[in-house]
Amino acid sequence: MLMHRHALNEISATEITRRIAAGEITAEAVVDACLERIATREPSVHAFANLDPALARRRARELDRAPWRGPLHGVPIGVKDVLDTADLPTEMGSPIYRGYQPSADSAVVALARAAGAIILGKTVTAEFAGMAPGPTANPHNPAHTPGGSSSGSGAAVADFMVPAALGTQTGGSILRPASYCGIIGYKPSFGAFNRAGLKLAAESLDTIGLLARSLDDVELFTAVLLSRQPAPPRVLESAPRVGLCRTSLWDHAQPGTVAAIEEAVKRLNAAGAHIRDITLPGSFAGLKTAARESINCYERSKSLAPEWQSHRELLSGQMQHCISKGLEMRYEDYLAAIRLGETCRAQLDSVFDGLDVLLTPCTNGEAPVGLAHTGDPGFQAIWTILHVPAMSLPTHRGSTGLPVGIQLIAPKHKDEHLFACARWIWRRLGPQ
Amino acid sequence: MLMHRHALNEISATEITRRIAAGEITAEAVVDACLERIATREPSVHAFANLDPALARRRARELDRAPWRGPLHGVPIGVKDVLDTADLPTEMGSPIYRGYQPSADSAVVALARAAGAIILGKTVTAEFAGMAPGPTANPHNPAHTPGGSSSGSGAAVADFMVPAALGTQTGGSILRPASYCGIIGYKPSFGAFNRAGLKLAAESLDTIGLLARSLDDVELFTAVLLSRQPAPPRVLESAPRVGLCRTSLWDHAQPGTVAAIEEAVKRLNAAGAHIRDITLPGSFAGLKTAARESINCYERSKSLAPEWQSHRELLSGQMQHCISKGLEMRYEDYLAAIRLGETCRAQLDSVFDGLDVLLTPCTNGEAPVGLAHTGDPGFQAIWTILHVPAMSLPTHRGSTGLPVGIQLIAPKHKDEHLFACARWIWRRLGPQ
Repeated sequence: MLMHRHALNEISATEITRRIAAGEITAEAVVDACLERIATREPSVHAFANLDPALARRRARELDRAPWRGPLHGVPIGVKDVLDTADLPTEMGSPIYRGYQPSADSAVVALARAAGAIILGKTVTAEFAGMAPGPTANPHNPAHTPGGSSSGSGAAVADFMVPAALGTQTGGSILRPASYCGIIGYKPSFGAFNRAGLKLAAESLDTIGLLARSLDDVELFTAVLLSRQPAPPRVLESAPRVGLCRTSLWDHAQPGTVAAIEEAVKRLNAAGAHIRDITLPGSFAGLKTAARESINCYERSKSLAPEWQSHRELLSGQMQHCISKGLEMRYEDYLAAIRLGETCRAQLDSVFDGLDVLLTPCTNGEAPVGLAHTGDPGFQAIWTILHVPAMSLPTHRGSTGLPVGIQLIAPKHKDEHLFACARWIWRRLGPQ
Repeated sequence: MLMHRHALNEISATEITRRIAAGEITAEAVVDACLERIATREPSVHAFANLDPALARRRARELDRAPWRGPLHGVPIGVKDVLDTADLPTEMGSPIYRGYQPSADSAVVALARAAGAIILGKTVTAEFAGMAPGPTANPHNPAHTPGGSSSGSGAAVADFMVPAALGTQTGGSILRPASYCGIIGYKPSFGAFNRAGLKLAAESLDTIGLLARSLDDVELFTAVLLSRQPAPPRVLESAPRVGLCRTSLWDHAQPGTVAAIEEAVKRLNAAGAHIRDITLPGSFAGLKTAARESINCYERSKSLAPEWQSHRELLSGQMQHCISKGLEMRYEDYLAAIRLGETCRAQLDSVFDGLDVLLTPCTNGEAPVGLAHTGDPGFQAIWTILHVPAMSLPTHRGSTGLPVGIQLIAPKHKDEHLFACARWIWRRLGPQ
């Protein structure tokens, strides 16, 4: 019995909902298994900012008595603590919002709930999805960062506390924790998942996405959040045409990332993928600075104007610095960064010419030691500003034994094609 | 004395703040004059959803005692009731949010407040900035709509209750009330004014903007909301090159609008403007339907998912219809609408080739009779989805005696150039 219950926190959302529908398991048993795992592991992982076990069990029992609600019936999920929840506080990783209780769910939470999901808890976020990290540790080694800012979502999913979690990415806040924690991260095309009820950080970049352990679950949640019928996964008719894109940041790639990319290329080549090197147009080299230095700080200095005016002393030094920089920035410099993003987006058609997907580094390497920083967002951030769908796959481990992922990129709005390519690649590179 | 106080509610924000700085008037006297006007006129205009005269007077007295706070020191403004305010309820034009008190200001409110503005009151919005209209009447004739969804902002500014107000435009919700009420409406380039703390309607369209009676005020508020130093207005070095753009909706233009456009062309020609007819590419004809039918309903069905799940019976029939349509819409059809917007945006460079600004109808005609509908958003909505800056100028009156404006459009991010062109044109077409 113990083994069986333990296993329930390890299965996918897809399997949970299938087995509940078949009457083999109950939502309550799944929630119990997740809560048991959390009770054991949370003291060293610190993935959750707020957890209400009694509420989660009550919701599970309600679902067990209720008619079939939808494709997430009985699935417990984690929700990054910058997304409003009507029945759990939303603290934004900031003392300013300690105990803050929103009056309504965010859009994505409402959509997941309506499909039968159980909001198990709010996961730790770095301050306002970007600055001072929370207490979360990497579940593979608590001396290392889990990445951020969706730190708790990454750690909770990797540590089998929930099958999937909602995250947000302004720089690299979904794919970096996914890579560091050894799970799948998915940042959709900009605008795909609705942002109502999200605390905005830098609104021309903020993208809601998913952290999960299976591609099936990524597709299942995506269907729910877009109000589509879940459909069987699309399968590529032939081997994908892959652009190997080292980017201008390649010099920052550490041995773990270099090895992951090279090994991935070798195995995909052997499996019949058509791989060729591609070089991004020169203007793309400015994207990281444009996104991180200009747009991020300028837009935060506006979106956090209320907190800056009323609670400046409760913002971290790092956040105060970013906002000051944003306030002092010449508007022309901000506009130049916005325009660079627009220009590069317009050039993407030619980048993708004859290609299905790009293969590119996800993080500089494995998760660095220490919890004071969540790692370098460079390799993720350039795709965030390009508004293209991005996915990290947990394909490799570095010399430290910690995970290091690869990143796949598809053209904007071609998220379904990204899924199909990711499946093909995952079958060749994933755990055999 | 009475005349003097009465006049204070008629002067511009620019003049208010200049005269307060010069020690000629007090913020309290300005607020008193506005409140007196409101007390007289509000019973027939119904511009405000929430008003707290005692609070506004207290804030004014605080400012009168405080050091110079910023370029809006002592200026009372109206704020559309979909923008969060920490000290006034934010009711969204919906019974679901009756009495709802946000915990913090929206970004634009915080920025205006930090510059010294006094939030005089929350202005009536149609339900969630889009559907069932509120009680506001057109101040020129209470049997006619003031337009919407920024109904209260348009009416309050036109009726001299406040010098300026914040509004939002998803279809035509700033420029239509501006045109119907005979004031200036300004919708900036998409994304210019930060949306943190705005209740999202359709987030790929929602744009925060301004309603005011003077171009100086539009520029003053714009500087504040972008954290720029207010600067003397730019002046065109030569007469503007104007593209007369009737659009594919020209058949909907009523005599008042046709006369306004024709008369404007005649006078601008006489004044030396270089005017030529331009025809939008054929694909642009689909923009109105894409924006209004597809994007608006699909995105609302997501952003209002929490309300749909928890308070469906409190949504208007019109809103329920729109959300149902959005939920049932094929995702591919939504994406096609999004892509049409992207395609047309990419074609705008060639549309503007050799032109400074487009002159185009703003509304079908004067404000229609009745308060049950706020008029047709077609002429405004096609520019909203194009993300370009748009401004209406209150240049004309129709045969009913009600105002009818013209609309000016500039390329994305060229808002300053739009201001310069608008000044040139306003000097020729505005009240002599």
